[in-house]
Amino acid sequence: MFRKLISLDEAKAVLSRSFQPKPLGIEEVALLEACGRILAETVVSSMNVPPFDRSTVDGYAVKAEDTFGADEENPVKLRVYGTVNVGEKPKIRLNKGMAVEIATGAPLPEGADAVVMIEDTERTNSDILIYRSVVKNENVMKAGADIHEGETLLESGTYLTWKDLGILAAVGLEKVRVYRNPRVAIISTGAEVIAPGHELSPGKIYDINGYTLGAATIQCGAVPVNLGVIPDDLQKLSKALKRALETADLVVTSGGVSIGPKDIIPKILDSIGSPGVIVHGIAIKPGKPTTIALIGEKPVFALPGHPTSALLTFHLLVRPFLVKLAGWKEEESFKTVKAFAGVRMFSAKGRRTFVMVKLAHRKGKLLAFPVATGESGAITTLARADGFVEVHESRQFVDAEEEVMVKLF
Amino acid sequence: MFRKLISLDEAKAVLSRSFQPKPLGIEEVALLEACGRILAETVVSSMNVPPFDRSTVDGYAVKAEDTFGADEENPVKLRVYGTVNVGEKPKIRLNKGMAVEIATGAPLPEGADAVVMIEDTERTNSDILIYRSVVKNENVMKAGADIHEGETLLESGTYLTWKDLGILAAVGLEKVRVYRNPRVAIISTGAEVIAPGHELSPGKIYDINGYTLGAATIQCGAVPVNLGVIPDDLQKLSKALKRALETADLVVTSGGVSIGPKDIIPKILDSIGSPGVIVHGIAIKPGKPTTIALIGEKPVFALPGHPTSALLTFHLLVRPFLVKLAGWKEEESFKTVKAFAGVRMFSAKGRRTFVMVKLAHRKGKLLAFPVATGESGAITTLARADGFVEVHESRQFVDAEEEVMVKLF
Repeated sequence: MFRKLISLDEAKAVLSRSFQPKPLGIEEVALLEACGRILAETVVSSMNVPPFDRSTVDGYAVKAEDTFGADEENPVKLRVYGTVNVGEKPKIRLNKGMAVEIATGAPLPEGADAVVMIEDTERTNSDILIYRSVVKNENVMKAGADIHEGETLLESGTYLTWKDLGILAAVGLEKVRVYRNPRVAIISTGAEVIAPGHELSPGKIYDINGYTLGAATIQCGAVPVNLGVIPDDLQKLSKALKRALETADLVVTSGGVSIGPKDIIPKILDSIGSPGVIVHGIAIKPGKPTTIALIGEKPVFALPGHPTSALLTFHLLVRPFLVKLAGWKEEESFKTVKAFAGVRMFSAKGRRTFVMVKLAHRKGKLLAFPVATGESGAITTLARADGFVEVHESRQFVDAEEEVMVKLF
Repeated sequence: MFRKLISLDEAKAVLSRSFQPKPLGIEEVALLEACGRILAETVVSSMNVPPFDRSTVDGYAVKAEDTFGADEENPVKLRVYGTVNVGEKPKIRLNKGMAVEIATGAPLPEGADAVVMIEDTERTNSDILIYRSVVKNENVMKAGADIHEGETLLESGTYLTWKDLGILAAVGLEKVRVYRNPRVAIISTGAEVIAPGHELSPGKIYDINGYTLGAATIQCGAVPVNLGVIPDDLQKLSKALKRALETADLVVTSGGVSIGPKDIIPKILDSIGSPGVIVHGIAIKPGKPTTIALIGEKPVFALPGHPTSALLTFHLLVRPFLVKLAGWKEEESFKTVKAFAGVRMFSAKGRRTFVMVKLAHRKGKLLAFPVATGESGAITTLARADGFVEVHESRQFVDAEEEVMVKLF
């Protein structure tokens, strides 16, 4: 059963050659439901925002040139012809010598090109005295100043946030086309694993991966379908994997892989469809037994059972793949921060090593300190980690004080 | 109608005296649905994780003292009595001179106190030769090493993330008690505002606040109920506000307040219940017309209509209040970063001023640059801002290069 491990880069290349993830389809959703979804169309504004020249103050709409020379000593007198309120279409056309009372946000009447602030005027019945001149466009927000007609607002593939919703609402869209969320079936296995909520018999431990991988799936913009803990049994696992492949776009298992004779998941994956297993183990630490298969058009990622290894390999291999299925523009959706190694971090001989780290500010510097992982620390150490640092297989170590990129969970 | 504006601190004090927000109730949810919810119980572990002493390698469980002195030249010979696999209860009790084959993750048999790695042994039928001594607990993860029985895992009021789900799963919980999400009714008004999806008549603009405030509500762990755009009309607004108060725990309106005679929302709020309006305008910029009322037990925040003002006042006043209704431990849930002012930022005379800023890295420093806001820039400038800087009313300006705290949206 011994096979030479391939490098992480080779594993990624095998995966890319076998399968090119593409968005799964498009659906239309209401704007408020679009937060956190991936835009499936490039949105071009069909209108100006604001749609009209708009007063930014309470005052009087005028022709700027009528006010030239006005000051405290020499006010200009103009005749007032009515009022424009917000939300109204102005009924008056403004000619030389005329002023129209106008509210903040109201559209300028035709012929007006500036607004005098109410504080700079004095009203006497149907006339006003203007004590300060204005220049053309003063106190006016021009039509299209915020968004102009024909402007590209958002590119297809954008992850929509509240900011984007504001922009889409501003141009009058109440619905938007987004990519369908991929469905990810999650199966936990292993002879020692029991689902939370059940009684723990001797020698068993509770399943953690179903939950941490489920949450990681949600972070990729996908929907987890937790199929629970399936016993480490050829028949039952085979049935569960077939069901997972029918209902989901991608399958993730944890546990039940190890480089050894008890390796039943790879056997099942080779038996239930073709091409079957395409990656058997990767030269990384942790995560060595990671197995990848393709059954028809659907990928199956069989991750190790240790919670840290499962989550790390999810982030390294499943996530870049899953975000493409979800339709994101960026291949990598990782948030990364630059920091300095708090201590020397070693690589495992010949394997690309991923060191779980916690970030800390010390004397104005952001430092990354390893958190104990490996077999000795399971979920609590993983929960303390902010992210991980990669030590390439060609290097013996990353030295203390050296700059490192920390990929954040 | 003129009233002296009160300071932001006074406004907050009035609000706290009138109303002490408390969580609204408790419900039980499945673990995977608990992500992003607020824990309503302090979780104490009722078990050890791992629940038993566990081997961290493949090898042989032994009594450490039996291996003392073993090396390449002088192997120790022990008799092998069976195997312990993962997930099994060991059937054997180990006495002096005995070894038991053991898999990674399997429980140590009674009497064993260390594990010899398989690489350090040689098997000959029912015996093994051990070429390297082990000390007590070597290659063993002790029961409770990760989480010990009686340990407080998570405090009530914790915002649950995937990390917490992993910890709760590890101790076997499949359900968890969380606070009920507050429901926030959101009403947009203003004579010029039309809901997206409808035709825009002259002088009108599309509603933005219903969506940006809705998304901000979700970020507080609450559920927005968007009641849409209600015309600037006493009857219709009064009816909508009453309905909002019946169905929601808190009401937010935008638009329809300004320090002037068209101020209909404050009038309605004083008429539909008591004590009615408790804050009429605040000495802040932007956001001066912000009005706060209490109708029976429920607060109504009437925010200005300008998108930047509405969102800022939501973050300043509604958010600290809403997160307490949602049950968060921290009064403030803002993420804050330290940066340096990119340019001098001025305060408006006598009003606490909030400058919308964009962050940029320049020569290893994080700088905050104001984005144009005010009336001239509506949604696109707001969408470009990363957060805001506060300039206290007692100061004329914050100088360029001065350290500032940026509160992030």
